Amino acid sequence: MGAIGNAEWTGVRLSDVLDAVGAPDASDLFVAFTGADEVDVEGEEASFGVSIAMDKARQPDVLIAWAMNGEPLTPEHGAPLRMVVPGYAGVRSAKWLIRIEVRDTPSDAPIQAHDYKLFPADVTSDTADWSQGLTINAMPLNAAICVPGSGESLPAGEVRIEGYAIAYDRRVSRVEVSVNGGRDWQQATFTDDPEAHWGWRRWTLDATLAKGRQHLVVRAFDETGQGQPERPDTMWNFAGYLCTAWHHVDVLVE
Amino acid sequence: MGAIGNAEWTGVRLSDVLDAVGAPDASDLFVAFTGADEVDVEGEEASFGVSIAMDKARQPDVLIAWAMNGEPLTPEHGAPLRMVVPGYAGVRSAKWLIRIEVRDTPSDAPIQAHDYKLFPADVTSDTADWSQGLTINAMPLNAAICVPGSGESLPAGEVRIEGYAIAYDRRVSRVEVSVNGGRDWQQATFTDDPEAHWGWRRWTLDATLAKGRQHLVVRAFDETGQGQPERPDTMWNFAGYLCTAWHHVDVLVE
Repeated sequence: MGAIGNAEWTGVRLSDVLDAVGAPDASDLFVAFTGADEVDVEGEEASFGVSIAMDKARQPDVLIAWAMNGEPLTPEHGAPLRMVVPGYAGVRSAKWLIRIEVRDTPSDAPIQAHDYKLFPADVTSDTADWSQGLTINAMPLNAAICVPGSGESLPAGEVRIEGYAIAYDRRVSRVEVSVNGGRDWQQATFTDDPEAHWGWRRWTLDATLAKGRQHLVVRAFDETGQGQPERPDTMWNFAGYLCTAWHHVDVLVE
Repeated sequence: MGAIGNAEWTGVRLSDVLDAVGAPDASDLFVAFTGADEVDVEGEEASFGVSIAMDKARQPDVLIAWAMNGEPLTPEHGAPLRMVVPGYAGVRSAKWLIRIEVRDTPSDAPIQAHDYKLFPADVTSDTADWSQGLTINAMPLNAAICVPGSGESLPAGEVRIEGYAIAYDRRVSRVEVSVNGGRDWQQATFTDDPEAHWGWRRWTLDATLAKGRQHLVVRAFDETGQGQPERPDTMWNFAGYLCTAWHHVDVLVE
């Protein structure tokens, strides 16, 4: 079916399967997926179950897939069949798919009902009303430094810094890297297809590092000019989800 | 044609007009709009001209409009015909429309070519390569406190704080208000239709203010969990565009 994110997927469109069985298409419906795997939820075994809204389910790049990058799926990747729900948190792309159900309500499986919910900072696990949290689906803007790794020792001079940025259904328009803890910023260069959709946008920057402990930072902007929050404490939530503050890496330059 | 943002618009879909004249539909094309108004660009008179990409132009809520909220357009609002390009910077919704053109390239009118471009912080008006700036179209996540106004004096006790948030094509999922400069946050309540698209999402919060100079702050999150950057200096650009940091209002409580 072509490239979705950073892989080539082979499968059938979920929307074609829904049409083939005459499933209704109202935008207030949900499509639920059950996997063959059992998950441990607070000490109880439960079937892996998640759901997505019908409008997302009908998008043409939501697939029931059986091959990735030209090879049949391996067991680890969900063989024989798995969902591919681009841009959404990986949890919605159910593996080892055994059941698809059109429902009036989201899946009531614990993974859908109790996990992957975003709450404000003043809510705790004791006070959370799970029906009120924001269901985490689409992913916010984020960027990370992959090379060098945190704590690495490097020789002084020019160093290649590499990483990725991602912006759900938007284009990443700009990636900036600081080698002095955020005081000054340099523009990174994208190293892959600017038209690629849903996936990581990889970038690189050759920067000169002075001797000593250096503090590298990355921040991305999407096509609307949207930037990332600076500090993780501005997005604290008790479950620890979606920390998309600027990513920091400390290195020792010798 | 129904509600778009915070108004009811009457007009014809741009896509229907493009179809009626047999315009091509390739996604690498642009649709340019010329207005009857002349604008002053660095001392020279020029026609108002802008453009949008064909994919946006073909969206069903991009209109050529002649009435707003059931009344014919007034001159100030662009009579007799204007563009309505939802979610985009207002500059793309050309007023006093006199010409629509399908082009291989964006409009070369000065407004499109030289204005509304976003540059990194290290670029100045002297060093800007206008062909390299990000064309400002879709608007990033933002929120503002409208009431009380900055510098207002208020009686101590409970105060109603009001404002709006906006998130381009996404839903605003949460608005938080601090009445102590950002140390603690309270959840605002939305006061309009959560399904409304493209427009402001209005919110309100009844908060108790202590006597003295108080520092109110608002921040919004969209449906992906995306938050706003905290400080304006993290998004500085020489033209002063798209400052979407947390909005602050100082009041004196007596």
